[in-house]
Amino acid sequence: MKWKRSERLVDMTRHLLENPHTLISLTFFSNRYSAAKSSISEDLGILKETFEESSTGRLVTISGAAGGIKYIPLVGREEIKEVIHSLMNELRKSDRLLPGGYLYMTDLLGNPRFLDRIGKVIATAFFDKEIDVIMTVATKGIPIAHAIARHLNVPVIVVRRDSKVTEGPTVSINYVSGSARRIQTMVLSKRSMQSGQKVLLTDDFMKVGGTMQGMKSLLEEFNCELGGVAVLVEAEHLEEVLVDDYLSLVKLRAVDEKHRKIELEEGNYFTRGGNELWNM
Amino acid sequence: MKWKRSERLVDMTRHLLENPHTLISLTFFSNRYSAAKSSISEDLGILKETFEESSTGRLVTISGAAGGIKYIPLVGREEIKEVIHSLMNELRKSDRLLPGGYLYMTDLLGNPRFLDRIGKVIATAFFDKEIDVIMTVATKGIPIAHAIARHLNVPVIVVRRDSKVTEGPTVSINYVSGSARRIQTMVLSKRSMQSGQKVLLTDDFMKVGGTMQGMKSLLEEFNCELGGVAVLVEAEHLEEVLVDDYLSLVKLRAVDEKHRKIELEEGNYFTRGGNELWNM
Repeated sequence: MKWKRSERLVDMTRHLLENPHTLISLTFFSNRYSAAKSSISEDLGILKETFEESSTGRLVTISGAAGGIKYIPLVGREEIKEVIHSLMNELRKSDRLLPGGYLYMTDLLGNPRFLDRIGKVIATAFFDKEIDVIMTVATKGIPIAHAIARHLNVPVIVVRRDSKVTEGPTVSINYVSGSARRIQTMVLSKRSMQSGQKVLLTDDFMKVGGTMQGMKSLLEEFNCELGGVAVLVEAEHLEEVLVDDYLSLVKLRAVDEKHRKIELEEGNYFTRGGNELWNM
Repeated sequence: MKWKRSERLVDMTRHLLENPHTLISLTFFSNRYSAAKSSISEDLGILKETFEESSTGRLVTISGAAGGIKYIPLVGREEIKEVIHSLMNELRKSDRLLPGGYLYMTDLLGNPRFLDRIGKVIATAFFDKEIDVIMTVATKGIPIAHAIARHLNVPVIVVRRDSKVTEGPTVSINYVSGSARRIQTMVLSKRSMQSGQKVLLTDDFMKVGGTMQGMKSLLEEFNCELGGVAVLVEAEHLEEVLVDDYLSLVKLRAVDEKHRKIELEEGNYFTRGGNELWNM
C-alpha cells in the first residue's frame, strides 16, 4: 500500500511519540510507507518544526549508516511553570492537610494526565544525563517513576520495605530514616539491576532525604552510579539534607495545622543550576 | 500564527494521542490553528482513516453544539495476539522460575514500552464499559493499573495491606486469601472513591481470586459497582475461581520445578465472549 504524505505525517507522529529516545532508521519509515528516503526526510522536517513549535520535544537526526531519527520529549519553560503551579494550586487546598502536618496527595498520584505531564517535566531535566534505570521506593513513588520512565524509555525498579517470594533472591540494606531517626530496611531483587548502570532516584516527597540516602546505599551494593534525584515535593526542615543535588517541583515551606494553612513555593527546578535544557 | 495542513496534522495527532477518551470540540482546534472548521473536519478525516489503518484506535465524532471528537485507543486483533505471545515467550524462560512455583515478572512490570502495549490491550477490552476508576493492590498491580488508566483516561486507586498516615481516614476489610486460606486485611483511603463509581479491578497474577474477592468486598463498602476484572496471568488450580467473569492475557497451566519447565497458554482474552471489540 502506498501512503499519502498526510497519512505518513499522522502515522510517523504516532510512531515517534510511542517510541521516545529510540533510534529509528529512515529505512524503517521508507519501507513502512513505500516512500523514497528523500520524501521521508521532508516529512521529518515538518514533524521537527511542529514538535518544536508546540513544545512537544526535539527530533534529533543521527547521520551515517547506523543513523536515523530520535524523538526526545522535552517540555518548554512555559509549560513547566504551568505544571508546577497547577501542582501548587492543588496542594494548597486545605482539605489535603492530615494530622501530623502530612499532605494527602494520593489522588494526584492516581491521575494519569497529571502524572504524564509531571513525568515529562522531570524527564526534560534529565534527557541528556544518560539515565539507564529509574529507582523508587514502594508505594507512592511508583506512578511517578513510571511517568518519567516512559518519556526517557528506561525501566523502573522498585525498592521494597519487605522481601517477597516473587522477587527471588534479594539484597537488603539498613538505613536511618531522616526525620524519625529510626533504623529501616530496604530490599531489592538481586536481578533487577546490573552493575555500572546510571540510576535516577525518585519519590513523591522528601524531607531530610533518608529514603534517598538508603537508595544511594543500595546503588553502592549494586556497583551502580547515581544519575540524579527528583522529587515532587520537598519539605522545609531544620536539619541538613542528606542528598547534595536533587530536583524538586514544589517546596513545602510550612504547615499551620491550627489555621489549616499550607505554605508552598516553587521547588528548585529552575534555580538549581546546570539546567538550561528547556531553552529549546 | 497560521498553521499549514501538514503542521496541523502532526499537532492534532499529538493532541489526540495525549488526550484519549476526551471530548475535544472543533472550536478548540479551529482556534488553535486559526483554521476554518471545514478544514479541521477534513484534517480529522485523514486522522481517522490513518488511525484505523494503523490499528491506533477510533476517532468518534459527536455531533451537535456540545459535540466534537474523541480518540478511543483500540488495538487490533493481530497486535493483541502479538502482545499476548510476546508475553508468553518472555514468561516461558526457565530462569523466571522461583521456589514454590512462582514466576519472576518484576522486570516486565518495570518496562515502560511493554506496559504501554499491555495497557492498551486491556483498555481495548473495556473501552465501552464506562469504567470510572481502576483499582489494584500494592505493589505489583500498580504499573499495570496505570498503563490501562492512561488509555481509558480514568484515575487509579491503590489498595494497601496496611494503613498509612498519608492516606488519611481509611476503610479496612478482612478477606480470605484464596490459595493459602489466610485471613488478610485490605485498606483503602476513604476519600479515594465516590459511591456509584464503576470500577475495573486489575492485578498481575490471579490464582483462586482471593485478592479480587477482597477488592470486591471493598467496592461494596464504598457502594461502588464492579466494571470488570483483568489480570496479566491466571494460574491453573483445582479450586473454583472466586470471580465469575475476568479477562486474562496468559494462563499458567503448570510449573515443573524439577525439570524447570513452565507451561503456558493464551488466556481467555478472545474466548470469554461478549468481546468483539477488536474487529474494528
